[in-house]
Amino acid sequence: MKQKLTIIKVGGKIVENPESLSALLDCFSGIEGKKILIHGGGRSATALAEKLGVETYMVEGRRVTSPDMLRIAVMVYAGWVNKSIVAGLQRRDINAAGLCGADFNTIKGHRRPVVKVDYGEVGDVDFVDPKPLLNLLQNGYTPVIAPIIHNGDGNLLNTNADTIASETASAVAPFFNVELTYCFEKPGVLLDPDDDSSVISLITPESAAGFIEKGIISGGMLPKIHTALKSLERGVEKVVITNAENIGVNGAGTTIQR
Amino acid sequence: MKQKLTIIKVGGKIVENPESLSALLDCFSGIEGKKILIHGGGRSATALAEKLGVETYMVEGRRVTSPDMLRIAVMVYAGWVNKSIVAGLQRRDINAAGLCGADFNTIKGHRRPVVKVDYGEVGDVDFVDPKPLLNLLQNGYTPVIAPIIHNGDGNLLNTNADTIASETASAVAPFFNVELTYCFEKPGVLLDPDDDSSVISLITPESAAGFIEKGIISGGMLPKIHTALKSLERGVEKVVITNAENIGVNGAGTTIQR
Repeated sequence: MKQKLTIIKVGGKIVENPESLSALLDCFSGIEGKKILIHGGGRSATALAEKLGVETYMVEGRRVTSPDMLRIAVMVYAGWVNKSIVAGLQRRDINAAGLCGADFNTIKGHRRPVVKVDYGEVGDVDFVDPKPLLNLLQNGYTPVIAPIIHNGDGNLLNTNADTIASETASAVAPFFNVELTYCFEKPGVLLDPDDDSSVISLITPESAAGFIEKGIISGGMLPKIHTALKSLERGVEKVVITNAENIGVNGAGTTIQR
Repeated sequence: MKQKLTIIKVGGKIVENPESLSALLDCFSGIEGKKILIHGGGRSATALAEKLGVETYMVEGRRVTSPDMLRIAVMVYAGWVNKSIVAGLQRRDINAAGLCGADFNTIKGHRRPVVKVDYGEVGDVDFVDPKPLLNLLQNGYTPVIAPIIHNGDGNLLNTNADTIASETASAVAPFFNVELTYCFEKPGVLLDPDDDSSVISLITPESAAGFIEKGIISGGMLPKIHTALKSLERGVEKVVITNAENIGVNGAGTTIQR
């Protein structure tokens, strides 16, 4: 039987506030067994861009990345946020290793082709190499991944952290029993968006279609569920959507499983 | 016999200009055998601080680091500069792994005690763990180290890259035949500061005293030579001071050796 590997993806809102970051790192440290943390940092990037007079454009929730914005994203995601998390985990006796996709040649991709929108220095993932991640995990290190990849030709590219999480989970799925948790503001996928106690505990590929048809899964949740279902197809054991407080708590949140 | 390990330290001036960085990475890629790159990035940090209205204070050539300045240093050194170098090396088929002292718990230190000056978030190195570096090198990765360390209690600290280079070289000296090169603006230590062809080719611990007495080694070169001599005492095979163009060129620059 394959060993369990927990992959947690947290967004900017949590990692950028010292208090919620500290709570998250406490939870994360408590998870037994091998684990990987994947983080965003978009809000800090936007705040720094504002201070520097670099305009932020969003198209359909995705950041259009100018060369100036790329530099800011790399500084914030792979620099301050990544290293703050690593130092915080070291404090908790987790021997963390921060990396972005360029390190160890872990995640390679290409600049997103211009169709309707030119997203600029944004990368689509071509390949996640599981080897360096397996190597780090085997040696007792906990990878902390910033959502910056490279194109193999010397260029860094900004990439969505949800995508990095899904691609990474799929890449290591042949070697581990992978549980991927998306850390969300809400306690899970809700039947009634105004009622936090209405968490749907299980979504299967079969039941997902019904929830989508009825409009229960819609808006920003739709791409999350699609990504989760794709991860299951690619060998991930289960995907969990829950809030920071419930990370690693068995049965909390919404489980998406075959 | 121990295997050779080349450690190159480059300052901000070289890594922050795309053209000189590219030339450096070409040279570095050409070095045979195992290698480590250690970099600064002070000028970009100063420039970013200026744009953000964060004042830069230098005392005796060392940066006084406020919490705001620390964040800038981490973003620039461990973020943009480190990842740009890593992506540039990947392009040259060098499988680079960027890290700061917090990653892998590689370099631990403490906040510099206040004597005459409060340097703020500046760290003095207590310990470089050779294990993660040996592990990376054995697995075919080339470490690229940013001069940020941690205190084990969750805090990142800004540290001088020359010191990181010397401490790292000493830590791995029991396992490798270490050659440490400091990349300098001048082709080496000069007999006549106005004559670039007057490079002193060899300095020994014995001859160093004479050069210092005669005032030939003085100013900013003095701490460099002291650090170099200390590295030799701690098992480093030789220290070379030369300019970027001559990195890895046998016999170029000034060699400091027993």
